Amino acid sequence: MRAGKFSITTARPMELVDITATISGKLQESGIRFGICTLFNPHTTAGLTINEGADPAVGHDIIGGLKKIVPMDYPYTHMEGNSPSHIMASLMGCSLTILIENQKLILGTWQKIFFCEFDGPRTRSIHWQIEASD
Amino acid sequence: MRAGKFSITTARPMELVDITATISGKLQESGIRFGICTLFNPHTTAGLTINEGADPAVGHDIIGGLKKIVPMDYPYTHMEGNSPSHIMASLMGCSLTILIENQKLILGTWQKIFFCEFDGPRTRSIHWQIEASD
Amino acid sequence: MRAGKFSITTARPMELVDITATISGKLQESGIRFGICTLFNPHTTAGLTINEGADPAVGHDIIGGLKKIVPMDYPYTHMEGNSPSHIMASLMGCSLTILIENQKLILGTWQKIFFCEFDGPRTRSIHWQIEASD
Repeated sequence: MRAGKFSITTARPMELVDITATISGKLQESGIRFGICTLFNPHTTAGLTINEGADPAVGHDIIGGLKKIVPMDYPYTHMEGNSPSHIMASLMGCSLTILIENQKLILGTWQKIFFCEFDGPRTRSIHWQIEASD
Repeated sequence: MRAGKFSITTARPMELVDITATISGKLQESGIRFGICTLFNPHTTAGLTINEGADPAVGHDIIGGLKKIVPMDYPYTHMEGNSPSHIMASLMGCSLTILIENQKLILGTWQKIFFCEFDGPRTRSIHWQIEASD
Repeated sequence: MRAGKFSITTARPMELVDITATISGKLQESGIRFGICTLFNPHTTAGLTINEGADPAVGHDIIGGLKKIVPMDYPYTHMEGNSPSHIMASLMGCSLTILIENQKLILGTWQKIFFCEFDGPRTRSIHWQIEASD
């Protein structure tokens, strides 16, 4: 098993940041050929998702769509005013599980791994663990 | 590997119940220092999520937001009348994966683990498994 | 550890396809009695979820509800015109983690495992891995 965490700094209030290359790099360093990679986001106004990375417009549309889906002006009771960001965090989820085969992440042709910033810009951290399978 | 299940009784039609202390207790009893904790909710009108636990208003706002997001009066075809609860269950997800380091759950400063009741009050159960990593 | 992938062909633009029997079959062939089953969907306009399978109306209502939740006519920028499908994919998630006990998937009485087609009909594939626990 190999594990650690890394930081990313976001640039906007809400954005998707492609972290695929960082995760692939950890996998290369680990030398693990078959197993499971688990990612965990420890922030309550951010999330993780896997979606199309070829066209950056998709990430842009996911943010735009979420801002339409989650009411921005509902009479929320949390005083900090960022309840929509907390809801988006739960909609996306805080962990990802990715299978490993021949020392490569099993991802579809168009899939990339994204950190979802919903209350930035901030410096954030992501925990990772790569576990070998027998 | 250690595994089991525990019950919780919810008090309202929809609410978030903090189950972090119960999971931490299972981890302490297991003696496992590094690994992965998996939680699984076997109910189709309930879910699991991780979000802010310091201010109970966040959980309140997540429920309030979901009731705005999911149409409550769409002409649903499921005769039991609880289709919005089924949709909320799929939006939150039925499992959680949490990393373990030095016999502690890796959670962010504000993160707590919540059982999401969407069709209560009821007695519910949660399955857990804690697996050690090499 | 046992792993592989299988194909499914969907029949409609959007639908939930019950894949529980296929997964249970892989588990039977594996001979693994305790552990974890991980499923991964490599497509960016599809997802995986667990929900009620006894009444097919629930799957129908989940699709109907998602089409109300996700704006279909927001001024999206992705030129392919299927941004709502990408958003639904992220809302459902691309992986599932299911516990195994006595060579059976731990699923609730009403739970079934569903592949979520959001941009069909197409031929799709699902990756699976079953890992034994000590």
